[in-house]
Amino acid sequence: MPYFDHNATAPLADCARDAWLRVQNENWHNPSSPTRAAARARIRLESYHETMSVLLGGEPEHYIFNSGATEGAFAVLAHWASRLPPTARIAVSATEHACVLAAADTFFAGRIDWLRHESGGIITPGAVQAAIEVGAAGVVVMAANNETGVLQPWPEIAECCRRASVPYLCDATQWLGKLPGASLGAVGAWLIASGHKFGAPKGVGLIKIPKSEPDFRHPSGGRQEQGHRAGTEDLASMAAFSAALVEAEQKHVIWESQRLAWRERFEKDLIVALPGVQIVGHGQERLWNTSMIVVPHGDQSRWIARLDKMDFQLSTGSACSTGLDGPSHVLVALGLPAEITRQALRISAGWQTSETDWRGLLVALQNTHTELAVRNL
Amino acid sequence: MPYFDHNATAPLADCARDAWLRVQNENWHNPSSPTRAAARARIRLESYHETMSVLLGGEPEHYIFNSGATEGAFAVLAHWASRLPPTARIAVSATEHACVLAAADTFFAGRIDWLRHESGGIITPGAVQAAIEVGAAGVVVMAANNETGVLQPWPEIAECCRRASVPYLCDATQWLGKLPGASLGAVGAWLIASGHKFGAPKGVGLIKIPKSEPDFRHPSGGRQEQGHRAGTEDLASMAAFSAALVEAEQKHVIWESQRLAWRERFEKDLIVALPGVQIVGHGQERLWNTSMIVVPHGDQSRWIARLDKMDFQLSTGSACSTGLDGPSHVLVALGLPAEITRQALRISAGWQTSETDWRGLLVALQNTHTELAVRNL
Repeated sequence: MPYFDHNATAPLADCARDAWLRVQNENWHNPSSPTRAAARARIRLESYHETMSVLLGGEPEHYIFNSGATEGAFAVLAHWASRLPPTARIAVSATEHACVLAAADTFFAGRIDWLRHESGGIITPGAVQAAIEVGAAGVVVMAANNETGVLQPWPEIAECCRRASVPYLCDATQWLGKLPGASLGAVGAWLIASGHKFGAPKGVGLIKIPKSEPDFRHPSGGRQEQGHRAGTEDLASMAAFSAALVEAEQKHVIWESQRLAWRERFEKDLIVALPGVQIVGHGQERLWNTSMIVVPHGDQSRWIARLDKMDFQLSTGSACSTGLDGPSHVLVALGLPAEITRQALRISAGWQTSETDWRGLLVALQNTHTELAVRNL
Repeated sequence: MPYFDHNATAPLADCARDAWLRVQNENWHNPSSPTRAAARARIRLESYHETMSVLLGGEPEHYIFNSGATEGAFAVLAHWASRLPPTARIAVSATEHACVLAAADTFFAGRIDWLRHESGGIITPGAVQAAIEVGAAGVVVMAANNETGVLQPWPEIAECCRRASVPYLCDATQWLGKLPGASLGAVGAWLIASGHKFGAPKGVGLIKIPKSEPDFRHPSGGRQEQGHRAGTEDLASMAAFSAALVEAEQKHVIWESQRLAWRERFEKDLIVALPGVQIVGHGQERLWNTSMIVVPHGDQSRWIARLDKMDFQLSTGSACSTGLDGPSHVLVALGLPAEITRQALRISAGWQTSETDWRGLLVALQNTHTELAVRNL
């Protein structure tokens, strides 16, 4: 079953399963209890924060484990809204994930300035600078787009925000586990991410706060996660998150250039095989795993269904908006006509996707093209 | 290792582990994706909601899986605050869990009326009625106390709130999995609970909304959980929650009276063995598993450490406040003097706790009593 929907979710990594089971056997105790077993659980808990610090940079105590990037976006923007003046405006990229847009709309309704973007949806540091100069009190730009894979120049955006002392929220959900995380935690941004995109279980995510923020509490309650996130700590999922991320960080060192070459080859062959096909963000720096294509004819749902019958699983775009009315907001933001957005397919590979899988997908797309073209005659 | 800290957290049930692993193997796909595998995941997802409806009553679509009771309390009280007039006051029991008190303080600071309680912390429907008559626009009373095990007359409180059309939040975290849940979901209350108290993994909880509440969204983002809780669904944890709850519901049918008899026997013997010991809520209806005792001398931490060395794990009270400065807010609310609260030990058994474990704990408490008394001479 060649699975090309990793940007929606990835299967659980073996190392993550093992880590989860080990903690459930050995360190399932409540870290806040006053026993020796609980003390051992607290030591484990600290080790996961230290792992994040080693992998991503920054201080261990600035990492907060939570339930995922949706909770993260909601928590960070709620905090900004409570700290910024009630008239403060924030500058947001229009191609953010639905959860970030929803959080922005919840806490900054009517106070959002859309950042000007270049071809492919890229936000330049200049565009961020311009937004700050006209008064943006916060900046929201993701690291890598979930639909197109297009990478944003987040280190430069972070530097631009740092100089202006403006908070920066960087959704690293699609970056983490696919590209090197080594400097993510060092740039002074608010980071959010979800573990299930790179082999950790669903239901565990991460926030990195830029510096000590004693008033950042979401939700309030007990004093878990240095007082930032109340609720009994889910140690097993943190262990799985850490194990999966360690493994992923090793993988891109070894495999990234090869995997990128496979995707490049696929796209090159695809352009020949499917005359009229478009590749969104072609020529832009993109994640090595993602190819958002616009097929030359036919509704995307017919393509998806046919490919699925041939055992190729892919999607039409963000899983969160799939099946809903209306086109992908990302493609609309990129200026694609609505009818074209209904011909988009999102292909997203994983580390275990083989060259054979990519070749098989090319053939399956060709077959679908032929079959649907004949029916349309 | 006789473990008497189940109100802090319980070990993972075998059935929950199996259910979690099965879903991670078979149904790990994103239920929002447009493939057949995702459709199978959606069917699974619906089945967990149906299981809740069968076990607890009410409609499947009124159950929302989330990360736990802390998130639940925060979400429900945030929703109330957004719907009620800005001057609305809520009536709250002073013995609620720290997460509920923190959520109330976050969203209703300065607008909380403390409900008058009887001996043991019991809130009568009359007290609730009186609070509503003087204007309470919401009522917050837990089902069973996490420190003392004392049960509240939640069905009558729910009826009282229903008649007055006042929303009722019932924290069922300690009730669920220990006592029959069959009518919890039918009383028209806002329920919150956490799976890890009865053998599900940490990081998964439940909200029951009383009726269709299209505007209840926490966090906002994608349209998961009927639009109420955004974020990719953690199917594996929902499966584990459902499996653990099904098993627990069977257990109390078979074992509850026997387990209650063991605890009663323990307390009866304890009063003889430790002259001067107090049992908090003695004579009140309590959870079959909980015994909050006040030892006749010595600081609780010395007792805990000695018992721990004898392999009996118990705690001083709520795990969330253990180790923090200040006495248990529950015991203070019950009117116990501060010095007495420092002599409190919380004993909380599980279904797998045996009669031998209870007898062993009695002996261990006697030994600790003797040892500490000799040292104090």
